[in-house]
Amino acid sequence: MPNSPSPDAFGPDTEEFLADFHHTTRYGATDNGGIDRQAATVPHGQVRDWFEARAAERGFEVRTDTIGNIFAVKEWNPGAPYVLVGSHLDSQPLGGRFDGTYGVVAALHAASALDRAVRDGHLVPQANIAVVDWFNEEGARFPPSIMGSSVFVGLLELEAALRTVDPDGVTVADALADTGRAGEPVDLPLAGYAEVHIEQGRRLERAGIPIGVVDRSWHTQKLLVRVVGEQSHTGATLMADRRDALVAASHVVVMVEEMVDEFTPETIVTSVGKFDVEPNSPIVVPRRVDLVVDLRAADRGDVTRARSLLLERMERLAERRGVEIEADDFDVRPVQPFPQDAIALGQEAARDEGMGSAVLNTLAGHDSVALNRVTPTVMLFVPSVDGVSHCEREFTSDEDLVSGLRVLTNVAARMVTGALSQTEPGGERPHG
Amino acid sequence: MPNSPSPDAFGPDTEEFLADFHHTTRYGATDNGGIDRQAATVPHGQVRDWFEARAAERGFEVRTDTIGNIFAVKEWNPGAPYVLVGSHLDSQPLGGRFDGTYGVVAALHAASALDRAVRDGHLVPQANIAVVDWFNEEGARFPPSIMGSSVFVGLLELEAALRTVDPDGVTVADALADTGRAGEPVDLPLAGYAEVHIEQGRRLERAGIPIGVVDRSWHTQKLLVRVVGEQSHTGATLMADRRDALVAASHVVVMVEEMVDEFTPETIVTSVGKFDVEPNSPIVVPRRVDLVVDLRAADRGDVTRARSLLLERMERLAERRGVEIEADDFDVRPVQPFPQDAIALGQEAARDEGMGSAVLNTLAGHDSVALNRVTPTVMLFVPSVDGVSHCEREFTSDEDLVSGLRVLTNVAARMVTGALSQTEPGGERPHG
Repeated sequence: MPNSPSPDAFGPDTEEFLADFHHTTRYGATDNGGIDRQAATVPHGQVRDWFEARAAERGFEVRTDTIGNIFAVKEWNPGAPYVLVGSHLDSQPLGGRFDGTYGVVAALHAASALDRAVRDGHLVPQANIAVVDWFNEEGARFPPSIMGSSVFVGLLELEAALRTVDPDGVTVADALADTGRAGEPVDLPLAGYAEVHIEQGRRLERAGIPIGVVDRSWHTQKLLVRVVGEQSHTGATLMADRRDALVAASHVVVMVEEMVDEFTPETIVTSVGKFDVEPNSPIVVPRRVDLVVDLRAADRGDVTRARSLLLERMERLAERRGVEIEADDFDVRPVQPFPQDAIALGQEAARDEGMGSAVLNTLAGHDSVALNRVTPTVMLFVPSVDGVSHCEREFTSDEDLVSGLRVLTNVAARMVTGALSQTEPGGERPHG
Repeated sequence: MPNSPSPDAFGPDTEEFLADFHHTTRYGATDNGGIDRQAATVPHGQVRDWFEARAAERGFEVRTDTIGNIFAVKEWNPGAPYVLVGSHLDSQPLGGRFDGTYGVVAALHAASALDRAVRDGHLVPQANIAVVDWFNEEGARFPPSIMGSSVFVGLLELEAALRTVDPDGVTVADALADTGRAGEPVDLPLAGYAEVHIEQGRRLERAGIPIGVVDRSWHTQKLLVRVVGEQSHTGATLMADRRDALVAASHVVVMVEEMVDEFTPETIVTSVGKFDVEPNSPIVVPRRVDLVVDLRAADRGDVTRARSLLLERMERLAERRGVEIEADDFDVRPVQPFPQDAIALGQEAARDEGMGSAVLNTLAGHDSVALNRVTPTVMLFVPSVDGVSHCEREFTSDEDLVSGLRVLTNVAARMVTGALSQTEPGGERPHG
């Protein structure tokens, strides 16, 4: 391979990386070892300030775009396209400290290592590099998730994203302006994208393999369900006279979970995460419940079937209980395959670093899934202890963090020197 | 009966009463014909201002006590004890316009009618009279319900009530001070209490009877239930790896409702009205649900049995689903019988006004249940259309409102002239 670098010539500074990563956990730290850095909140701003300062110290030019994505840019070859590496610094409420943040800090250290190698003459890049912190990947405060990267690649309209409101009615536009993150358009021609992330499942841990290379994302969709009954008095209203929205909605939750038994094990996950009761008073029979159903499967057909079963069962439930149940589809995301060459590149980089790797799909959405629609993308996973994520006890060992950093650096080195330059982006499968 | 008044001599001004009652519905009016006047909010303050002004115009002396109960006092016989008549002006969120407010406005007009009769020499009272608007009967913003009257009769400590916080952390003490309702101790020696209220059930409507006389309250209790699982990612976490607090809590809700099938129909009501999910994000498997179970039955034994069944089933559920479920009893209210003489008085007053009456028990708690512990108490009901209450479509016809006002006035006239002066208070039954 022309310009193929030797691993030793561009190895990242793993000690500095670990110090930086563990430093970030102080921003929005929670009592039980997690973080709470929802998009455009004060602690999210603090970790982003830190990231900008750290990137500037290392000679990156920091730019913020109109949806609040932050790019730390290193232009080695004026006019050449960019390899982006990154992830996101926002979190779920009471979230884990690895999800997203690990990928941003690893990307900064991978890019810094390559920059040193370029300066020392060990690496002759064809492309440029930029480290990205995508805005609002989690979507906890401002749904939907994967907002910043979706706007960047043109999957979501900027104006629609800016109009999104949080539960207090604050728009993304105002939240960005108030926190000094409403920037100017950033136009970077793309050569590719690479991201490392914790797996958030236990397949790597069970298999004892340090690196996962993602081959495709699951088909996912949400349903916004409204259950409307009639408000009455918990004391005075006889059972026969009630149309209790909470009892009906509870049956929906149970239904959503029990449905998975009708599918092949581990090929589908179904959940209700958001559930709001109105008026929510101890002595009032609830009038209304709004809930969000989340359906995800390796196969599009399974999601379609689960959705049909649920709609049919909710209709019967509504009739049986004298309530109204309405459901709207939203946030439908088809299966997205990553390019074969990108998967092979991830495996090769792992082998080059002396590590085993497994090819697996991702149940969760990631910024990489959006980027993969427009540019060849490599998505790497490292193991999650007990497979838990989106919670305070989310954990990955320093050793595994460093392994992921090494492979990401190797992948990025290959990409800036021309690997995947002939590869088409991945993206939607014609039939799922 | 000495001093027994003739009905015509002290008839209330029913047109003025209806005008006043319908006027109150503008304070905190909701879009669908209900009201939202939770305790110590702005609309609650507005209707209380109106009540104070209306009472002062009619020559009542208005006093507010330390827990925010408002007394409109008419002292005919200095030193004599007081017959109290009243109810409450606060409401549930999106509540009905009759619940509580009807009883206060009716009490003001009943007392005004008696005062006219006293001035005209048609009525020679032995006692004095005071119209009361009890603070926070609903308990929607500040639990528990029946707060002001419970403090007044010594069932609840003033300091504990004042420390109670709303969901935003505001204390009752601050809310009262901020709204100018933190008054001075009001010490009124009691001769009795009378209250008229909508039934909030459909027994009177079904029977076609205009007046209900309450013989006892149901045994009630609440359970504060905490379901704790583990937060995880709705996308990335396989079903087998989850400990979903919302699914478990939904099973609790279903369990609470289905349990009533094991009891005699219409002798028990069970509900969950308050249900809070944490962290409540669309893509996070919930870590925790806090919910309030409300158990009420005519017989104490049935509540005890329902509670045991539920605790036992929740324990098995917790084991089966790998979650923790804890439950604490609170707000336990034993069956409270009203005095036989007070029941007879209510029936006699209805007969005197040419109306039929039915003796029935109350499933819901009322300020009268607290007052009945310390002074002989008459509790009257008027029909509720469709039996619905704590909702915007709660309704009682003008004709039924006026019937209740007439009987309340008749009862109050009898009480200020000595009826029930030899009667002991009602209160807790030795065995339920």
